[in-house]
Amino acid sequence: MLFTPEITPNAYIPPQRRLLGPGPSDISTRVLQALAKPTIGYLDPSFVSMMEELKSLLRYAFQTRNALTFPVSGPGSAGMEMCFVNLVNHGDKVIVCRNGVFGNRMVENVERCGGEAIIVDDTWGEAVDPQKVEDAFKRHPDAKVLAFVHAETSTGALSDAHTLCKIAQSYGALTIVDAVTSLGGVPVLVDVWGADAVYSGSQKCLSCTPGLSPITFSDRAVNAIKARTQKCQSWFLDVNLLLGYWGETTRTYHHTAPTNSLYALHEALLVLQQEGLENAWARHRSNHEALKAGLAVLDISYVVDEVARLPQLNSIHIPAGLDDKQVRITLLQDHGIEIGAGLGVLAGKIWRIGLMGYSSRVENVIACLQALESVLLSQGYACKKGEAVAAAYKAYAQQAVK
Amino acid sequence: MLFTPEITPNAYIPPQRRLLGPGPSDISTRVLQALAKPTIGYLDPSFVSMMEELKSLLRYAFQTRNALTFPVSGPGSAGMEMCFVNLVNHGDKVIVCRNGVFGNRMVENVERCGGEAIIVDDTWGEAVDPQKVEDAFKRHPDAKVLAFVHAETSTGALSDAHTLCKIAQSYGALTIVDAVTSLGGVPVLVDVWGADAVYSGSQKCLSCTPGLSPITFSDRAVNAIKARTQKCQSWFLDVNLLLGYWGETTRTYHHTAPTNSLYALHEALLVLQQEGLENAWARHRSNHEALKAGLAVLDISYVVDEVARLPQLNSIHIPAGLDDKQVRITLLQDHGIEIGAGLGVLAGKIWRIGLMGYSSRVENVIACLQALESVLLSQGYACKKGEAVAAAYKAYAQQAVK
Repeated sequence: MLFTPEITPNAYIPPQRRLLGPGPSDISTRVLQALAKPTIGYLDPSFVSMMEELKSLLRYAFQTRNALTFPVSGPGSAGMEMCFVNLVNHGDKVIVCRNGVFGNRMVENVERCGGEAIIVDDTWGEAVDPQKVEDAFKRHPDAKVLAFVHAETSTGALSDAHTLCKIAQSYGALTIVDAVTSLGGVPVLVDVWGADAVYSGSQKCLSCTPGLSPITFSDRAVNAIKARTQKCQSWFLDVNLLLGYWGETTRTYHHTAPTNSLYALHEALLVLQQEGLENAWARHRSNHEALKAGLAVLDISYVVDEVARLPQLNSIHIPAGLDDKQVRITLLQDHGIEIGAGLGVLAGKIWRIGLMGYSSRVENVIACLQALESVLLSQGYACKKGEAVAAAYKAYAQQAVK
Repeated sequence: MLFTPEITPNAYIPPQRRLLGPGPSDISTRVLQALAKPTIGYLDPSFVSMMEELKSLLRYAFQTRNALTFPVSGPGSAGMEMCFVNLVNHGDKVIVCRNGVFGNRMVENVERCGGEAIIVDDTWGEAVDPQKVEDAFKRHPDAKVLAFVHAETSTGALSDAHTLCKIAQSYGALTIVDAVTSLGGVPVLVDVWGADAVYSGSQKCLSCTPGLSPITFSDRAVNAIKARTQKCQSWFLDVNLLLGYWGETTRTYHHTAPTNSLYALHEALLVLQQEGLENAWARHRSNHEALKAGLAVLDISYVVDEVARLPQLNSIHIPAGLDDKQVRITLLQDHGIEIGAGLGVLAGKIWRIGLMGYSSRVENVIACLQALESVLLSQGYACKKGEAVAAAYKAYAQQAVK
């Protein structure tokens, strides 16, 4: 009568990897254990207390006093979409900076909201040019929103969020900022910037499991959302409805919150708060410097100029003569190390080595350089055994006596 | 310089509850342990093999051979929205059956997609009346889609999905079916029904942690989606883009999949497959019968007529003279038992006792009746100690010799 199962799988046992790609990053045992705690109801008084702590922990991470700061029940792209569907009305002009995959995704979002995207293009691998943004506002002073990516995950370039937000403010525009890869790895100072809607992802420098998107809205943004005359085109992402569950006073059912993922995020943010933001930024910088020293010995160059280079996501040119895919597969299968491929126009041309969150550790830097050297040697690449690792250790030694 | 944290929380330790509300349900140790396995990349070959198993396990649960069967990276309301934004174009007429909260959410979805909702209302607590649907199609033979809720979580009423789908097919309309509370608890026979888009939730009768929405699309639905001339208004939920990650041939990055939640769903579905769908349905029925026998002794009546009553979600009238909120709070705080409140027009009038998935166990039925009796007695309700529990045990005894 019933269809029989197509297959009878075994219990799934994932291999142990070092996650040195663009995310997810390594997850600590603390966070994995928090994830596995008993599930309770999303309106349980105990859970509601945890939600308040979570909002406070997120405010620290984002450096904001924004009341509306919470995790979206979906990945970063749901967080991105929440910003656009709530802040962009049909016919609104939105200036979108595009210097990588995620800027382009923002353009898609604007258009799907019925907005008009005014695109400011910059070369992939470069920061957004504030002058071009200023020029775009001069041509379109009626633009309602400026949207840009703080840390482009597809290229490893960091843009000057503070300057970009100030330009938008001088034209009375709201700002939407993608901080998916930056939050926890480099300074994200929402209130100093005066940014209006900033979203991130759980699985990058926060080192929580993937599936949540921390988000924060300024009072200015919340007022704009409350004043909307058009209904938000998304029910699931409608901030006016979500305020009933994550807002300040009520806890009304909107959707079933992903309880266990929220336990894990609470723990990951607690880890960050215990370390301290400045220490976390310094750690990301330190491991980046060591990796950089090793890569220099391997004669591998960075895609992004030093001034705009993300410490937590090292985009590097694939040396001539090497087989992109074969190197990545060998790193994964023989060394248990995942690094990221290039995306879009950079596919096949670059690798992205992430040292994000709990992945940003000395042992990962060393293991990565050892494995990379071994694989490159096996492909006939000219380098000397052990020198990259030695350079990394030397860099750590120099940091120690500074 | 930096804001100091508002608070320094302790690690969060949720209390142990019996989850006998409308979801989430109890999660077994097997599933919680799967959740906590090491995170790996969403393009890792090992993960990709697991995805294939997951799709196969879901096909068994849904009883479908639909190629496009996968879990949406969000809760049931994201699954609902995925169906509407992909299958409803601006101006399309959609017949929506509304006999509870979730039918009404479907109406919201239609309107936010720019569709025209033709609403077929039925009393909350009753099944959808097929005759009214037939009549609606007669008045609107150009309707593109019929949408209805198979098992209304807000009322506990089960509708005849097979008959409703056949009516839609006779008018050439596609069907969108909410199987959030039904999947795994009562027969959901997607291919027998000929349903086109069916979504569920991870946290009900599948007893996985909340946050995922299993979904399946018929080839007819996929063809309609591929033939769209309007872009889907949601980037995050665009099936044409998601086909690149969850489809048959490619594994292209769309968004970062919630790896650990997917491990847990794999395990929860494996548990279901090992038990067998028919055994799972029978278990839900058996525990329902025992609970019902106990409630009868307590003189507590059901909201839904026997013929349309969901075994996994027992909607009952709150007896006169009892304080809804006080009873629920006492059950939670003194007995560790969560039951559900009424929603919408039924708020304050009903309770919803869920026996879903791993919550559907003898010990939960007994504990629930014991606790309920104790709380009712403390509120001066006329009942005799032990009789409800005895009636439940007698019901089990009768089942055993049948």
